[in-house]
Amino acid sequence: MAAGIRSPYYSMGEHTLAVPASLFSLNRNRLVDRLKNNSSVDKNSVIFLQGGNEETRYCSDVGPVFRQESYFHWTFGVTEPDCYGAIRVSDGASVLFVPRLPDEYAVWMGRIAPLESYRVRYEVDEVYYVDEIVDRLKEMQPSNLLTLNGVNSDSGKNCHEATFEGISQFKVDNTLLHPEIAECRVIKTDLELQVLRYVCDVSSRAHIEVMKRVRSGMKEYQCEAIFQQYCYYHGGCRHCSYTCICGSGTNGSVLHYGHAGAPNDKTIADGDICLFDMGGEYYCYTSDITCSYPSNGKFTDDQKLVYNAVLAANRAVLNAAKPGVSWVDMHVLANRTMLSTLKDGGLLQGDVEEMMKANLGATFQPHGLGHFMGCDVHDVGGYLSGHPERPAVPGLKSLRTARALKAGMVLTIEPGCYFIDHLLDKALADSKLSKFLVPEKIQQFRGFGGVRIEDDVLITETGTELLNTVPRT
Amino acid sequence: MAAGIRSPYYSMGEHTLAVPASLFSLNRNRLVDRLKNNSSVDKNSVIFLQGGNEETRYCSDVGPVFRQESYFHWTFGVTEPDCYGAIRVSDGASVLFVPRLPDEYAVWMGRIAPLESYRVRYEVDEVYYVDEIVDRLKEMQPSNLLTLNGVNSDSGKNCHEATFEGISQFKVDNTLLHPEIAECRVIKTDLELQVLRYVCDVSSRAHIEVMKRVRSGMKEYQCEAIFQQYCYYHGGCRHCSYTCICGSGTNGSVLHYGHAGAPNDKTIADGDICLFDMGGEYYCYTSDITCSYPSNGKFTDDQKLVYNAVLAANRAVLNAAKPGVSWVDMHVLANRTMLSTLKDGGLLQGDVEEMMKANLGATFQPHGLGHFMGCDVHDVGGYLSGHPERPAVPGLKSLRTARALKAGMVLTIEPGCYFIDHLLDKALADSKLSKFLVPEKIQQFRGFGGVRIEDDVLITETGTELLNTVPRT
Repeated sequence: MAAGIRSPYYSMGEHTLAVPASLFSLNRNRLVDRLKNNSSVDKNSVIFLQGGNEETRYCSDVGPVFRQESYFHWTFGVTEPDCYGAIRVSDGASVLFVPRLPDEYAVWMGRIAPLESYRVRYEVDEVYYVDEIVDRLKEMQPSNLLTLNGVNSDSGKNCHEATFEGISQFKVDNTLLHPEIAECRVIKTDLELQVLRYVCDVSSRAHIEVMKRVRSGMKEYQCEAIFQQYCYYHGGCRHCSYTCICGSGTNGSVLHYGHAGAPNDKTIADGDICLFDMGGEYYCYTSDITCSYPSNGKFTDDQKLVYNAVLAANRAVLNAAKPGVSWVDMHVLANRTMLSTLKDGGLLQGDVEEMMKANLGATFQPHGLGHFMGCDVHDVGGYLSGHPERPAVPGLKSLRTARALKAGMVLTIEPGCYFIDHLLDKALADSKLSKFLVPEKIQQFRGFGGVRIEDDVLITETGTELLNTVPRT
Repeated sequence: MAAGIRSPYYSMGEHTLAVPASLFSLNRNRLVDRLKNNSSVDKNSVIFLQGGNEETRYCSDVGPVFRQESYFHWTFGVTEPDCYGAIRVSDGASVLFVPRLPDEYAVWMGRIAPLESYRVRYEVDEVYYVDEIVDRLKEMQPSNLLTLNGVNSDSGKNCHEATFEGISQFKVDNTLLHPEIAECRVIKTDLELQVLRYVCDVSSRAHIEVMKRVRSGMKEYQCEAIFQQYCYYHGGCRHCSYTCICGSGTNGSVLHYGHAGAPNDKTIADGDICLFDMGGEYYCYTSDITCSYPSNGKFTDDQKLVYNAVLAANRAVLNAAKPGVSWVDMHVLANRTMLSTLKDGGLLQGDVEEMMKANLGATFQPHGLGHFMGCDVHDVGGYLSGHPERPAVPGLKSLRTARALKAGMVLTIEPGCYFIDHLLDKALADSKLSKFLVPEKIQQFRGFGGVRIEDDVLITETGTELLNTVPRT
């Protein structure tokens, strides 16, 4: 796909996507434009970001393969660790700072690239060594260095704020940049959408490969192994976007199954429903897709009932989402659709609107409807100031954003229905909820696991575009 | 393989190895015995270790799959993050401290295991919550807490020293533990050897799978993808021991190729020599195997020459290594063997002993002969006090240990021969070295890449046991 592209680009080979460096110069320009329109920002300010560092595990000399910090990636697209970058607000001039490597590097790590090759490859205006930051910044005479400081509303953690030897010689403002860059990241450009479509397609094909090969008697992690290999071998995705969740049977009801304490190590039983939530990552752009289906390929009536309830919720949102619509309303729509279908199926009784008021939905789907997706799988910008705050209501407080939708946003739509003993017991013990449950039916579904149908969608001017291509019916 | 094992064990399924928890109780007992024999250690001391923590990437809420800190793994075999462990020196009584998990954990991460299940699974004497550390330790009335502090001689980094809220209420000694536990890790038990044999076998089979499937026109990383999938799918190895090095052609001469800045992304050309250095990891026990062969399966005369020189060096060490022999002498033996074969092949001229004195070996093999291997791929204990210090001589200073061999040590034997422009230019410019080089032959080999033949071996009472099973001839 690299044919015809003249600008420098990232690619993992001809069978993969060529991503032009202009994706990042466009991002930088968009950021600078926003800052210019912000009257609090002095036009002589310089944006200053620090990239991710190479790290090893405790005292050992090995560690995971380096993956760039997401804000830095969004801004510069640099794959190497230990870099810094500056952008002058007045004219958008960009400067990359790379580590000065010792001669020995050539022996151990490979050819030492000249500075000019970085300049060309990343389409920045200038490249210097990290040990030249102070001198070069002084020449730029910034009124302020705008550094990144702010809380990620998904993790509760603070951003990776830039620091370097000599920063005290500059005036630093760490309040202005974060909301502006986060807001830029919320709206995807066409260039970014190309990458997201690509990685969603690779991941969809990997899911289909797993569907073809899954058998009862296999270990759940063998499906993870198939998925990872497909994404890497066929799609050039060295990383997955998050730890693969390969829950079979009752494990499907553990929302973040697959971590080191529950490492996808159950044997898949005949007739188990599988809930496989996996996504590849290409050049730090993520995907996040969940497929749910029985290990033996044949849905039982119970499985059909739950699957159709979740699918109805997914499709209701897919059809209703468009610019101007509140994400909270979409969550509510999904819940109402699901509860209504579960009632039709005989699991619930009573009035659906009463169920909604009592927040019964959270008993079966304790998580939010979905989240932004981009350079992070739970992408930033969910709760920026000037937008609706996190709802306090129990069923809605897990939502990762409460914003009104806008064209260019990419989100997951991921309703789910789980039979979690802990939550069912709580609901049965709560008179406000228990009256809606048909006890013998609920009993019948204990240990069922769960179903989640998770799609990645772009909000278009008129509705939604589905980015993944896995079969759903 | 789990059949007949009554003690609790770790396993990733019936097609994988069952590792009994007694591996770790034996490790604890060995450590306590050493400390009892150390007259500086008060018998009322309590060893106190902190396990690894779950971490996410910068401000995002995702990160690599948790992998236990190696000292903690060696001592307790615990797969979960955020734990602590104590061992009383006087009687070896062991206490594990696990995080108290909130109710919500059951929804997101899985069933909250009762304390008793940890006690049984990890064969420790007692289990408490992390928030009970101070109370429980006070009851133990330690004269000292022995915490881990010391420098890893491979990374130069300090150990993960335990700390917790309230540690100031105890007397802490952080000098005594490190040399003793590191020395314990140097000598492997039979139970550990079972795991190392297993993971070396899995990795060998994965290498063979790659050999079968490699073709010119493939990307190097596709070989990495095949290897990783084989180890995980067939061997239950979720992690590799280190970043896969898949160098083809000239990349074979980049010793740590494969990192984010050189991510195995070259297309393999017809006739390229491939240098694939990859190892799976099972339950935090590592393997480290390098195979070198032409992508098209047919050695050219040049490739044969270099391969046979490296193989001769490898085999010379494999045959000579045994208890009492110095690892430095083995490095020298490998160098001498290789130089001698290169001379026979017409690349070098002059007297081999003169070449050795001039340290010509380091021009072709700038790294040490090998390293300890265990819970870390570069395992600890290379330069403990009371053993030979790191040699100052240029060719030997890269050695990761200078010790005399002992039965129970596991090391890699990994001679290599690389044609690295940077080092060849240096040698040609150095009259002490240039006289040995046959210029037109050296010129012919520029861009060749490299050959490394890396085996994992156990030092037995009488010699060596080869742990891997890849074909070499």
